[in-house]
Amino acid sequence: MTHADPALAPAGPFSESEQAALYRAIFTRRDVRSQFTPRPIEDATLRRLLTAAHHAPSVGLSQPWNFLVLRCPDLRARIAAAFHRANAEASALFPADRRPLYDSLKLQGITEAPLNLCITCDRSRGGPVVLGRTHAPQMDLFSTVCAVQNLWLAARAEGIGVGWVSIFHEEDLRHLLGLPDHVVPVAYLCLGHVEELHKEPELQTRGWARRLPLDDLIFADGWGRRPAQPAP
Amino acid sequence: MTHADPALAPAGPFSESEQAALYRAIFTRRDVRSQFTPRPIEDATLRRLLTAAHHAPSVGLSQPWNFLVLRCPDLRARIAAAFHRANAEASALFPADRRPLYDSLKLQGITEAPLNLCITCDRSRGGPVVLGRTHAPQMDLFSTVCAVQNLWLAARAEGIGVGWVSIFHEEDLRHLLGLPDHVVPVAYLCLGHVEELHKEPELQTRGWARRLPLDDLIFADGWGRRPAQPAP
Repeated sequence: MTHADPALAPAGPFSESEQAALYRAIFTRRDVRSQFTPRPIEDATLRRLLTAAHHAPSVGLSQPWNFLVLRCPDLRARIAAAFHRANAEASALFPADRRPLYDSLKLQGITEAPLNLCITCDRSRGGPVVLGRTHAPQMDLFSTVCAVQNLWLAARAEGIGVGWVSIFHEEDLRHLLGLPDHVVPVAYLCLGHVEELHKEPELQTRGWARRLPLDDLIFADGWGRRPAQPAP
Repeated sequence: MTHADPALAPAGPFSESEQAALYRAIFTRRDVRSQFTPRPIEDATLRRLLTAAHHAPSVGLSQPWNFLVLRCPDLRARIAAAFHRANAEASALFPADRRPLYDSLKLQGITEAPLNLCITCDRSRGGPVVLGRTHAPQMDLFSTVCAVQNLWLAARAEGIGVGWVSIFHEEDLRHLLGLPDHVVPVAYLCLGHVEELHKEPELQTRGWARRLPLDDLIFADGWGRRPAQPAP
């Protein structure tokens, strides 16, 4: 087959073993809070993870992300304190019958993971008018989340666990990390080598929630319309 | 090694070939607008893609997504018309010197791709208080984007191209898809088999934007602080 357009390359399906590797990463990735070993993350490994994140799709190729690599113990102690303040407020919001289970869950590994990473979105990146953002201003935030998920899957393949901590007052993170007003902290991640992971999502194992049946979530040609026959 | 906790499984790094397969998906994934072949997507393939999406991380294991599989030609013609209306408005927002290039870019394959998929976020899923959403209400939207990226990478491995179309008035999509008020259309995707893909992001090939140097995006222990030495 000749390629009239030199910008294009052949792109058929991967081999079965390649597909299996990708699905293995997708199905065995976990949100890690407790399994981090103290072994430092090598610079070359971190570089591969950040390169994977940087190859995420971005609206108008705007690449709105920055990567704040956080190792300073004092800084991380202050961030952990901000988490604990917010988490005490969070706990109080749950019904009394769920609160003991909530309080027993470990929801972060900020100080014990060897490395933390804050992935931010610069809302000014790409200038005032960005292709694909004209009618959907949130697309830059969504692009940044795609970078998070690329990194998360690459980390799984590298034997590195990732936990996303979202229980913060955003203002606390902004202050502690010195973020300018036009930069949003999208994801606060704890990273470290892992030797074992939960077989199922930890919140399922602990009885907090269960995976929903996929068929309940699929509609055809409009909200609420069940497909004529369930997918095989 | 014995596992005291039966909920845990060994989880070291993948083999080199498995890692290479994952990175191949990450680095060769493209936002596809023009390369779709008319070949229908098999039910079993679609099922694998939706299963990959459904295994994304979600805040509090809330799984806020639904998958609207859109095949009806009449519906897709109306959605394409909504795109064209919004895109005419978008074009007018760009400076005059960029407008001819903008207008020459093909930004969607709504009617020619064999299948469209709208991935939505049900903001009521998981009840009024969701673990991890108490201080970051946008986390359910971000979880839904993680599902999009899982699907996008799985599609690449299956030889299926995906294009994310974001140039719509959200109200048009809501109306055409019959979405209730508590459901947000997060991603409108065009899917189809592809035999070739752009080697680099199409917007780079076409001269719209370029990939940024990764080192410019990495900070250490706070915004704007360059690492002591660049990552290798």
